[in-house]
Order: sequence, then C-alpha cells, then structure tokens
Amino acid sequence: MAVTETDPALTRLYADFEAAGLLPLWTQTADLMPTSPRPKARSHVWRWKELYPLAERAGELVPVGRGGERRAIALANPGMGGRPYATPTLWAAIQYLGPKEEAPAHRHTQGAFRFIVEGEGVWTVVDGDPVAMRRGDLLLTPSWAWHEHHNTADRPMAWLDGLDIPTVAQLDAGFFEFGPDDITDYATPDQSRAERLWAHPGLRPIAAANRPNSPLSAYRWAHTDAALAAQLELEDEGHEATIEAGHAGVRFTNPTNGRDALVTMRTEMHRVRRGSRTAERRTVGSAVWQVFLGEGAFVVDGERLEVATGDLVAVPSWCPVTIEAATELDLFVFNDTPIYEALNLARSSVRR
Amino acid sequence: MAVTETDPALTRLYADFEAAGLLPLWTQTADLMPTSPRPKARSHVWRWKELYPLAERAGELVPVGRGGERRAIALANPGMGGRPYATPTLWAAIQYLGPKEEAPAHRHTQGAFRFIVEGEGVWTVVDGDPVAMRRGDLLLTPSWAWHEHHNTADRPMAWLDGLDIPTVAQLDAGFFEFGPDDITDYATPDQSRAERLWAHPGLRPIAAANRPNSPLSAYRWAHTDAALAAQLELEDEGHEATIEAGHAGVRFTNPTNGRDALVTMRTEMHRVRRGSRTAERRTVGSAVWQVFLGEGAFVVDGERLEVATGDLVAVPSWCPVTIEAATELDLFVFNDTPIYEALNLARSSVRR
Amino acid sequence: MAVTETDPALTRLYADFEAAGLLPLWTQTADLMPTSPRPKARSHVWRWKELYPLAERAGELVPVGRGGERRAIALANPGMGGRPYATPTLWAAIQYLGPKEEAPAHRHTQGAFRFIVEGEGVWTVVDGDPVAMRRGDLLLTPSWAWHEHHNTADRPMAWLDGLDIPTVAQLDAGFFEFGPDDITDYATPDQSRAERLWAHPGLRPIAAANRPNSPLSAYRWAHTDAALAAQLELEDEGHEATIEAGHAGVRFTNPTNGRDALVTMRTEMHRVRRGSRTAERRTVGSAVWQVFLGEGAFVVDGERLEVATGDLVAVPSWCPVTIEAATELDLFVFNDTPIYEALNLARSSVRR
Amino acid sequence: MAVTETDPALTRLYADFEAAGLLPLWTQTADLMPTSPRPKARSHVWRWKELYPLAERAGELVPVGRGGERRAIALANPGMGGRPYATPTLWAAIQYLGPKEEAPAHRHTQGAFRFIVEGEGVWTVVDGDPVAMRRGDLLLTPSWAWHEHHNTADRPMAWLDGLDIPTVAQLDAGFFEFGPDDITDYATPDQSRAERLWAHPGLRPIAAANRPNSPLSAYRWAHTDAALAAQLELEDEGHEATIEAGHAGVRFTNPTNGRDALVTMRTEMHRVRRGSRTAERRTVGSAVWQVFLGEGAFVVDGERLEVATGDLVAVPSWCPVTIEAATELDLFVFNDTPIYEALNLARSSVRR
Repeated sequence: MAVTETDPALTRLYADFEAAGLLPLWTQTADLMPTSPRPKARSHVWRWKELYPLAERAGELVPVGRGGERRAIALANPGMGGRPYATPTLWAAIQYLGPKEEAPAHRHTQGAFRFIVEGEGVWTVVDGDPVAMRRGDLLLTPSWAWHEHHNTADRPMAWLDGLDIPTVAQLDAGFFEFGPDDITDYATPDQSRAERLWAHPGLRPIAAANRPNSPLSAYRWAHTDAALAAQLELEDEGHEATIEAGHAGVRFTNPTNGRDALVTMRTEMHRVRRGSRTAERRTVGSAVWQVFLGEGAFVVDGERLEVATGDLVAVPSWCPVTIEAATELDLFVFNDTPIYEALNLARSSVRR
Repeated sequence: MAVTETDPALTRLYADFEAAGLLPLWTQTADLMPTSPRPKARSHVWRWKELYPLAERAGELVPVGRGGERRAIALANPGMGGRPYATPTLWAAIQYLGPKEEAPAHRHTQGAFRFIVEGEGVWTVVDGDPVAMRRGDLLLTPSWAWHEHHNTADRPMAWLDGLDIPTVAQLDAGFFEFGPDDITDYATPDQSRAERLWAHPGLRPIAAANRPNSPLSAYRWAHTDAALAAQLELEDEGHEATIEAGHAGVRFTNPTNGRDALVTMRTEMHRVRRGSRTAERRTVGSAVWQVFLGEGAFVVDGERLEVATGDLVAVPSWCPVTIEAATELDLFVFNDTPIYEALNLARSSVRR
Repeated sequence: MAVTETDPALTRLYADFEAAGLLPLWTQTADLMPTSPRPKARSHVWRWKELYPLAERAGELVPVGRGGERRAIALANPGMGGRPYATPTLWAAIQYLGPKEEAPAHRHTQGAFRFIVEGEGVWTVVDGDPVAMRRGDLLLTPSWAWHEHHNTADRPMAWLDGLDIPTVAQLDAGFFEFGPDDITDYATPDQSRAERLWAHPGLRPIAAANRPNSPLSAYRWAHTDAALAAQLELEDEGHEATIEAGHAGVRFTNPTNGRDALVTMRTEMHRVRRGSRTAERRTVGSAVWQVFLGEGAFVVDGERLEVATGDLVAVPSWCPVTIEAATELDLFVFNDTPIYEALNLARSSVRR
Repeated sequence: MAVTETDPALTRLYADFEAAGLLPLWTQTADLMPTSPRPKARSHVWRWKELYPLAERAGELVPVGRGGERRAIALANPGMGGRPYATPTLWAAIQYLGPKEEAPAHRHTQGAFRFIVEGEGVWTVVDGDPVAMRRGDLLLTPSWAWHEHHNTADRPMAWLDGLDIPTVAQLDAGFFEFGPDDITDYATPDQSRAERLWAHPGLRPIAAANRPNSPLSAYRWAHTDAALAAQLELEDEGHEATIEAGHAGVRFTNPTNGRDALVTMRTEMHRVRRGSRTAERRTVGSAVWQVFLGEGAFVVDGERLEVATGDLVAVPSWCPVTIEAATELDLFVFNDTPIYEALNLARSSVRR
C-alpha cells in the first residue's frame, strides 16, 4: 500500500469524503491537536491615550440606546481574523457615556463586569439596584441580570467592559432580552443595596441563599487598595502575604462560596512594587490586563511591551509573561481560568 | 409463646445476655429511638450579673497558667447530669483574666471562639498572630491553632468561650499540646495580621489556600453592627434583607468557602427591633444565646425567660423558641447546625 | 495568691458555682481535653458461637412485633457504662427472626444496614421494595426509609444490624414513626427494584436524582467477592490494586456521588490472605469488625484477640490495630469515619 | 446628533477604529448577542451505509501510524464552514483499523471515547491496560491518557470516536505527546485491569483515589442492555424508572464521584420502545446521536430525519428534538452538557 498525494484513487476518496460531509483527521492532526497550544490570538497592547479620543469621537457621532444598545468599542485581537475578541474567550471594550446620557435596560446570558480606570458620575442599575461607578471600582452584571446605565454628570465617562461573549457565542448559549425603553431608577445612592447587604468582611445575611455569581455588585477601590497595601506591609514585616516578593494580589470573589466573583471569568487586582519584576508565568488560557496606575512593561513571549495607565494588554494561552514595574504598578486583570479549572484543563508553570 | 416479665426463663436469658456483654433492644426502644427528640438538656438561663462576680472571685482565688491552663467557668446545663456542658454538643464558659495576667500557649483539636460582651485590653495570640479582644468582637481559635492570652490592662476582662468540647469528647477525637511556658508575643496591634489579609469584603489574597475553618481571626463589632443596621434600614425602605419583619441577622463565615466560620459550630449575630417578636422556630440541634445588648425574653417550650445584657440561654434540640425584644435586642448565638447539615440530620420548622 | 484545695474561700466558691449551674474548667482540663483520645470504650470480642444460641433462646421467649419492634440484641461495650453501644457512635446487634415470623414497618432518622453472615429466607421491604437477604450481602435502610421484615422460610435467620443510634441519640436528632401493623408486601423477588435500577457498574438511570444515602438497597456477595478476588489477582500479576500486600478491600458506596453508602457510617469488606498480617493502623474514630469467613487474630493495643467466623470486634478510637490471617480471612467492617471527615477531625497513622 | 451610514465622519471613525485594532459593538450586537441561540451548525444525518464503505476505501489507500496517527474520518457539520466538527464543541469520526493493523501510542489533553456499533477484535491499550473493543461497548481514553490500538483479527473494525477537540481548540488548551513507535502490549485479555478493579456495582477499591474522569475504562454492552431492559420492565410493572413512558436511559458515570464519565462530555444510552415517541426537548448545547440498533426518525426543528442502525445525527444548540421509534430503538448519544452545567449556562425545556 503506497500513498502519494497525487494518487488519483486518493483524490477521488477525498472528493467522496467531501460529498459525504466528512474530513479525514490524518491530513490535519498537527493543526487540530498541536504539541502545545498554538493560539491564533497574539499578545497585543491597546493604548489608553488612543482609545479614549476614539471613544470621544464615537460619543459625538453615534447615539446610544435601544438597538445599538451600548456605545462599546471592542478590542479586536489582530490574530482573531477580524472578530471583535480580545482573546478567544474574552471580550473587552471601552464603553463611553456622554454627559446626561442613558443606556436602557437589557439582560443577557453573557456575564459582564465594568472596571473603572478614571471618572465617575454614572450609575448602573443592576436588577433594580443603582450602583455608583467610580475610579478603581469593579462592578458586576452577572449572567441574566437586568442592567441599565445613566450618567448624571456634566462630563462623559468611559470604562472597561469585560464579558464572556466569545465563550457564550462558541457554545451557542446566548439569550438576550430588552427591558423598558426608559431608565427605571434615577437614584444616585452612594452605596448600592447589594453592598449594604454584602460588603461586610466575613459576614453574610442569614436570609440570603447561595448564588453561582457574586451577589456583591461592586468591589470598591478603597477596599482593594487597602488589601494590596496590607500585603506589601506584611511582606515588609517579614510575613507571608504576597504572591512573590514585591508582588501583591487579590482576587474578587463570590462571598457565598469563596470562588470567583463570576462563574466564567476570574478577576484580580495586582500591585507590583517600583523596580520589581514578577517571575515568568505561563498558563493555559488567555488574559486581558489593564494598567490601573503606573508605568512598566509586559514581557510576553520575549517581546517587551511598555505600558502606562489605562493601557490594555492581551496575553494568549501558554505565552510566558513577566511584568516589570518602573513605578509602583497597579494592574487589573481578567482571565478565563475558571473554565479550565471546571473542565480539568488547567495547567501553569512558573520560572523564577 | 407467652412472655411475662417474671418468666424465669426470660430472667435467665437476660442474665445470660448481660454475662455475654449484650443488651436487648426491645426493652428500651422508646428510650433509644424516641418518636421525636427528648433532650436531657433543659432550657436554662445563666445571669451575667451572677456570673461576673463569681468570675471575679475566681480571679482572686485561682491562679491561671500551666496545668489549669485557663480560668474558664463552664455553664453546666441542669439536665446534663453534672457534666460541664451547656448542651450535649456545646461547651460555653466565662473566661476571666486579671490585670496583667497571662495564659500560656496550648492547642487542641477542639475548635473555639471568644465573644466579648464587655471590656478590652486582652490580646489572644493565635498561631503567632496577636489579636485584640474588644467589645462585640467574635474571635476564632480553630481546631489545632496555637493560642495564648495576655492582659495588658490594669483591669480584668471576662468573655464568653465557646467550644465543641462535648462533640469532640463524644467522638474521642481530642488531642492537646502544651506550648512554651512563656507568652511568645506581647505585641498589641490594633489589627491582627489575619485581619489585614482577610478583612476586605469579597477580596481574597491570591497567595492563600482554602481552609476548612475561617482564616479570619476576628470579626469586629463595627462591621457586624453596620451589617445589622443596614438590613433593618433596607427593610424600612421596602426591600428584602431581614430574616423576618423586625429581625436582622448575619452569619460569621469562612471567606474561603462561604460556609460557617468554624466547621463544627455556627455563629451568628441577631438584632430584633424593640417591640418585635420572632416567629416560633424549632430546629434539631441545640444552641446557646447570649444577649449582647438590650432586654427581652425567650419563650422556650412555653416557658418565658426574661433576659438582659450578658445573660446566656441554652436551647435544647427541637424546643420551640420565640424571642421578644423589650428594647432593641442584640443577640449572639452559637449552635451545632453544621454537624446536622453534614450528617443529613437537619430539620427545622417555623410557625408564624 | 496561694491556693490549696482546702482553702475555705475556694470551697465556698465551688459551692456557689454549683448553685449557679457552673463548673470550673481548671479542675477537669485533663479529662475534658486529653493529650490524645482516651476512649471509655474498650476493645472487645463477642463470639458468634455464644451470640447465636442466645438469639435462638430469645426467639423462643420474646415475641417480635409492634412495641418491641425488633428482636435485636445489642453488643454492649464493657466500657460504655451499661449502655447498649458497641462504641460511642456505633450500635451493633444480632437480629433474629424465627420461621415465618414478621416485623412490621417503621422508620426512623437513624440510618441502618444489615450484614448477613449466614442464612437466607428473609425479605426486608424498604420503602415498599422487597429486598432478599442472603449470606454475604449488605443491605441498607437509610435514614427515614420505611422498613419491615418477613421470614418466608421454615428456618430462623439471624444477621448483624448496624445503626448510628449513639450518634443520633447524642445529637437529640431521633424521630420515629410506626407504619401499618401488617406486612405490606409479601413478594419474594430475587432482585429488588433498587438493584434492577442501580446495580449496573458505572451506569445510572437518567431519570434519578442524587441522594445523600445510596439508592442501591443491596450489595450482593457475588459482586463483593469478585471485587476482592480481582484485587488479589491483580496484585499477583504485579499491579497496584490492594491496600497493602495480601490485603484487599472494597468500600460500599453511593453511586450518585461516589461517597459512602450511608452518610453517617462507612462500610467495607476486607480480605486478608492466609498468613498475611496488615500494617498497624490507628484512626480517630471507632469501628466494629465482623469475621465473615475464616480464622485469625486482631491485635488491638497490644492485646491479641483470636477470631473465627461470625465473631465481632469493637475497636475504640485511636487504638492501634493489626490483623493476622490464619486462613484466608474475609472481614466486614463498619466505622464512623464519615463523621470525622465531615467535621475536619479525621486523623490516622500507619506503621509498617 | 444625526447618524447615517454614509456620514463621512463616521466612515473615518470606523477606519480609525480598525487602524487601532478596535471594532464597535453597536454594528453587530444582534450577531454577537442574539435573542436566543442561532447556531451555525445544522441538524444533519450521516448514513452508516455510506460511511463504512468510505472508511474501507481509506483502509486500502491510507496507512495508519506515526504522523497521521489514526485513520479517523471526521463528520463535518455542513454549517461549520469546512471545519471537521460535528458541532461547535464535539468531534465525531469513524475510525477504521484493518486486519492486523496497529496505531501506536500517543496522548493528548483532548478527552476521547470509542463507541462500537459493530465488530470486534481490536484492543486499545489505555495507560498500559489492554481493553477489548466489542459491539455495544463504550470505552474511555480520558484526557492525557496514553493509548494505542492493535487489531488482532483477520477482519477490519470500525467504530465511533468522540472527542472534545473543538472545545480544547477553542480554548487553546491542547497538548500532545508521541509514545513509542511500537505497540507496548499485545495482550488480549477479556477484561481490562480497570474493569477488574472498578466494574462492580457500588463498590470501590479502598486503595484508589478520586479522579476527575472515570477510572472505568470500559462500559460493557451486557450491563448497559440489562440496565435499559430493567427500566422498561419496571415501567411495565407500574414503577418509576424511565425518563418518560416508553423511553429508558442510562448515563455513563465516573464511579468515584457519580458525575459524568468524562469531564467535558456527557455519554448516555437510550432505548425507545417500538411505536413510542419522546417528548419534544430543547437544550442549550449540542449533541451527536448514533443509532445502535433499530429504525426510526429524529424530528429536529420540524425536519424529519429517518435513521437506521449506525446512522449519526447532529443536533445543534436549542433545536427542539423528538425521537420516534419504528422498531425498538437503541441510541447512543454524547453531548456537551457538562460544560454548560459547570459554567452556569445550562437551560432546557420539555414539551409533552
């Protein structure tokens, strides 16, 4: 039995395969089942100083509201073939709301969060509960929660939206519903009701049930900042607290089960001391980082990417990453690790 | 076949049973397997105004330290046959430490907490981490954690100790080790290191692993008070937040898994509005309540027990309980419900 | 401050403690919180050749039925102060049913199993499902399941009953209900419906929900024997399969979750090769072993207990145990380990 | 602010977006976030009578072995744009091994199973354990298990391969390793060692640890058939056992945890009585069915697809499906439901 690619019998067989809705594995094993992950997504930086002016121009030209639904501009990874995906599993966008603008309510099975690099004045109303959006805060709009936004200020506001859109699309699991055309609640409380119920360390309301996604709608910067500062202080005092020397980190969690705040996305805040450099880490799964404050560099697969406040970096699966802090460097990150943990596909390695 | 209790053959059989180390079920079914729980423990009140002076007298007469280990005076339920148990599963005691006194380190598999009705000035050092004890705080010393106490003040201090001693005794699972004879750390920080790491709502240190008992060594009154107040405010605003009208409650939890702070004991704080009355509840399992502040009454199995600040109430299994608040009434409670939940034996009912 | 036991002030204090329902810890620390478990239960053997004739005599003298409910004769550990407990957590009894006798239905929160050393002819009807009882089988009557027995044969039958009566009693969690006075189902099928649904390896009915206790009412000897034999054969072939050389073992599990067949008791079958000796093991928690077939010895805390078919051995908490097989030795065992695992109190050690 | 698609400012903005690696959400909301799932995959039938001859021709023309690795011919869903995917998450193929042929060992993070519609004579060696492949059996080669095949017979054999290739590809989580070039074990035991250890109903080896994927390498037809037959018999006797009248079903599970045999794919066997018709079900997530024996029809989204032994049917997400049995109809199915359950995205509905 000898086979050549030009064997006419083989050519006929392949044609018959195609006619029958079949494709052989042996001609594409390497592509379907690589030796190690070969992500199409690339490591990439989007600069805040470019993003923000473009969002402003969109604010002038594009209305927000029913139909288009949100003035969100997605990061399109250059390796993803023109799809609006930051990585194969993560959708990331700058959402922009002009002075006094509103975005009416909808809900969807896609889980979402907002992270605020700068600004304030917008309230997002999540399942009827108005939540203030302010610098440094992480806000959740979990799967199937109603949400609408309104800007009470005379100034625009822009923020990072993160969603699991690619995963839900790949899984054909998307449902979407429109709410009322008008904003349902213009209240502007300092604290949401969810925070009043849940933002007490280690305490839970007896009356509340467990939930797959966190019931805590907002994680405020004051808490996050204090937690990161405490870790570095404890390190200075000689105690175990940080991820590694000079590198503090907290994970946003669901207080009902101690797991990730959102089922499909891990969210964390990191602080790297000025002059520190993290170990080189690689993880199966992809991530999007945003510099919250400071300057430094990501070294991804040997390529050095300088970053400053607001910049966003996509890191594809299994790419080695080192982070260097030129100043004290605060970093927000979201990734898809909960999916890999759930499916027994998680792998990681550290090289110090 | 006719049987009478005076049948000599039966008498011989019973004697032969005894000689062989046997006991028939049929003579004691009702006792071993009652129609519903028939606890030997009784509902009972211990009065703080009696307890405290007795503890003071013990402070004058009994030294604390190696050997006796702790100046703890246990609540002995009148139904428990002279054993120092508040209920069949719960040990509760007043621990008293005089000015400048010390209790050296030990550890044991029994899990413990302290709840502070009044006073301050003592630090407990848990696994090398000094934790301030102050009014309204709940402090944990989980199973097998080293702990020592030292009073830095010129005044004595007394508090409630809760342990799972009866359960661990019944299970023959007790291990105990002595630590150094001298206090290992006289530091008096405002916050323990555990709190600096863990007392941030919804945030967890990335470097930390899950633990069966809570890593958060102290739950401070300021947080507990705020959480209870918020529930009642939300109720006033028309939102679901409380256990029932006029009755707020929080559970102390392990932030790594959202479950009870201690594996073997549930700990909670309740606030009942002045003039409110809770529904009548009965639960399989026993509880010990302590009035943190206020006046009111427990109606247990139809018996009315008037209570004031500091008083302790034992509630046996399956006894119906109603709580009435003459003033705003803050109540700490610990119970054994996690055991029943783990063993599929939990039952409860509510009558409104 | 000097204290002597004869100090009159101290005597008065202790009297006042007693009057106030209090007991000091310092006079009884060693007893309440020992350095390591000091079980009151003792290691003990009950001989089948003594038990069975006593059960026969009870069969002649004591009726079975409503009221006494069951002709069950409990093993009373000599250290348990006259209580009918084999260990502090485990109740074990010989139950005896004469030819054509019946025991009407009841149910209770106590979980139960039957293990059959010899005989056949009785059907137990569990929640309406008749289950044949035959030599070598383990049968379950989980918490709150209705159960009744009827002997269709002309010969009596005796078997081992195991229950969590002491645990449920200690926890005041016992509920009990009488069923109809007459047997509800005289059918004598070879297989129960539960087996027909569930006794297929690795398969579960799609329509069935998870349950805390196993839905599989009977674990048949043919399966257990084959599983033990296979482990020893695999060992002979050089593969990992046994607990240690010459010592095979299977655990009876709940197919809906892979955990113990009963929530409160672990049940296992062991086979030790002729001439083999197990490692010395100690475990927090107690156990009752029954020799199913063979001869050998238990060495418990240094004491050698010779055993033969049907004999029962109680092993208290933390006692070192070695098993020696004079012939091939098949052993059934039940213990309380699931309780310790649930409460984070499990400890064990092995010395080879 | 007025916007038209031909607004030159907007055209410039969109161009600038593209240059900056951005894509607006508002132009593609409906596509990214549909009202309900709009799968690209289509319902489709592949006929066994067409597949098998094509596989035979491949057997003559294409060698198997290192490089191409396996002679597997994938079902390419006509909606998946030429990719070799049966659905967006499931890979399904006919694998064909000629007389005396061999496929050398490899392993990969993709999880796999084989289901055998006809034939026998091949052994697959999974992590060193030879497993016979026979009609009606389900065999597992979980993620990262070494596996090789060898045909000992003088006849070819073909079977269904199912893998989670699309999911692992989408997640960039694929790792692959080559094993030795030669078959490592030519043994042809009737039972694999895994079956000898694990194929005992409700029993687990005490020495074995839990595993995310089932340790039971083969689920034999004799067991599956008996389980399905028993459900229908129980239904005939008036008991609850089946999914619905005339429709029995078993799920292949991991005996260490009672969950799905494979972490990423659910596998089940169904039996529908001659003349019966299932309720109309729709589920988020996709499935591939294979007729094991019999004739009937799938009605998918209103389209009727007649099927016979060996035929394969792809069912996309959220398509309503009814199954009709012209003869008694035995059906194997695998789907991706465990992924949705893990990610809190599961939804289903039934219309009777």
